[in-house]
Amino acid sequence: MTGNPLSAFEAYRKKSRRRQKLCFGEDIHGELIEVVRSSLSMLEPLERKRLTSRVSGKSYFEFVSGESASRCVNEDLFDGDQEAVIGGLRQILSGSTKGMDASRVARVLYTAAISFCAVVDLLKKGDQKTPGTFFEYLCAPVLRSFFQVDPVQALDVLNLDLNTRLPTDLVFDLGAKKPKFHVPVKTSTRERIIQVFAHQRVLDGAYGTGRFLGMPIVLTETKTDGRTKEVTEICLPDQWMLYHLHIATFWRVVYFDLPTAYGRLRTEFPPVPVIGIGEFLSPGGPLEEIVARHGSAS
Amino acid sequence: MTGNPLSAFEAYRKKSRRRQKLCFGEDIHGELIEVVRSSLSMLEPLERKRLTSRVSGKSYFEFVSGESASRCVNEDLFDGDQEAVIGGLRQILSGSTKGMDASRVARVLYTAAISFCAVVDLLKKGDQKTPGTFFEYLCAPVLRSFFQVDPVQALDVLNLDLNTRLPTDLVFDLGAKKPKFHVPVKTSTRERIIQVFAHQRVLDGAYGTGRFLGMPIVLTETKTDGRTKEVTEICLPDQWMLYHLHIATFWRVVYFDLPTAYGRLRTEFPPVPVIGIGEFLSPGGPLEEIVARHGSAS
Repeated sequence: MTGNPLSAFEAYRKKSRRRQKLCFGEDIHGELIEVVRSSLSMLEPLERKRLTSRVSGKSYFEFVSGESASRCVNEDLFDGDQEAVIGGLRQILSGSTKGMDASRVARVLYTAAISFCAVVDLLKKGDQKTPGTFFEYLCAPVLRSFFQVDPVQALDVLNLDLNTRLPTDLVFDLGAKKPKFHVPVKTSTRERIIQVFAHQRVLDGAYGTGRFLGMPIVLTETKTDGRTKEVTEICLPDQWMLYHLHIATFWRVVYFDLPTAYGRLRTEFPPVPVIGIGEFLSPGGPLEEIVARHGSAS
Repeated sequence: MTGNPLSAFEAYRKKSRRRQKLCFGEDIHGELIEVVRSSLSMLEPLERKRLTSRVSGKSYFEFVSGESASRCVNEDLFDGDQEAVIGGLRQILSGSTKGMDASRVARVLYTAAISFCAVVDLLKKGDQKTPGTFFEYLCAPVLRSFFQVDPVQALDVLNLDLNTRLPTDLVFDLGAKKPKFHVPVKTSTRERIIQVFAHQRVLDGAYGTGRFLGMPIVLTETKTDGRTKEVTEICLPDQWMLYHLHIATFWRVVYFDLPTAYGRLRTEFPPVPVIGIGEFLSPGGPLEEIVARHGSAS
């Protein structure tokens, strides 16, 4: 017996916010898991309608409920086995992916993310904000488990006579002389990616290049044409390269559903290090490596 | 006898677009003037409801028609005299503000801009795109008249093996060894201003600093609270300063309704050159001066 995903998310949000601070420790894992579980339960009996994919090598479907349809869902990344997803999510939230391969990590996290987003599409047509907030509230506790420190959302800037606070996306600060991670979280970026590069540039300028490791996390760049029901990926690789050359560079760009055109940027020169969430978080991946080298915050 | 402002704008748009190029020469001035004239005619008989202004020294009202209300309108900048506005607009579109003072230029252009936007608010509730497009289609022919060259919306970038086109806002290129003006046009910026700074940074990086004079044009930063009907200005002067210090600098930032907090940035150090449209375009202002010094494109 599970409840309504939207009210489950409200309960989760409420518990995470304490005195203007976001706390994503173990005590909220139960609420997060309840959001995912209730979403999967709601989607389980629904019709899945195959979409025409214009993305080479990827298949997509949408959930249909009466007149409503969800956003497109990647067939290979969606895991319909509720217990497998919940079990995997529990383990990832423990701060370890031991014994999981990249593909399993990717499927668990993609399924958790897309299921609640699909529920919102079906229940609150046109609401873009709630899926965006949820995606941030999914990524934050996962990263918190690996970094062992709560994120902050604003940084003090003291620049001679200018003393202000710079609002940021999530920032995980492992402590003095350890890496600080700047983590913008977006369900998609399109042309708005330039904001993310610019934000990184301000951090590089204000604190020194290399102090903050930029690590945007993005769900997908897919778009479903409302009329033809064709799925495409909106990618601007040449513009990314210009931004990478002229604005700032990221430590990693992490995708839940890695777009083909951005995946290629990693092998070109100069490389833009775009990577899938599975490879990023799985044993031997970049996150494990950097935490092992520099130590987590605790 | 005037027609519907929305269809007048459609006719204007259609005539301006030729083979994927925007042309804003004399032949479209009649269509633009018709948009403004029909908007003023539609607004003329409507009730003006005074709003509670939380902006020191400025008063605002909204147009009311049945259940609908327009965005807020600056009382001092709105000129209800239709013939004065049309006459002033005709002169400005001739590429000269001779005999006009800053206050008259500001009133003519603000009235022209806000009147069509108010009409859209009343006729197509929630449509943000059409006012934004119109504002661009008002600024472009005005600047074209002073620069004597049509704008382009993309630039070739050749960076060793990277050969691509960079989409831009309006760019007016006066020719070899003359200034090129990069003109983002926005009805308001809020936190999205970082995009504008970042775009300027890419131009500085790709072509060399100083080659493109950045000159964003913004209508206003006002916001009306839907419930209390209070008008405030959403300004982030400390963040602008960080962007100015760390991302890029603009030649001028031009406001139709200059926000108090940004007007002050011009007198601080290092100055961010924010200026009202009246002062910018009137005799002896920065635009006349730079065109006189470097010559227009013709």
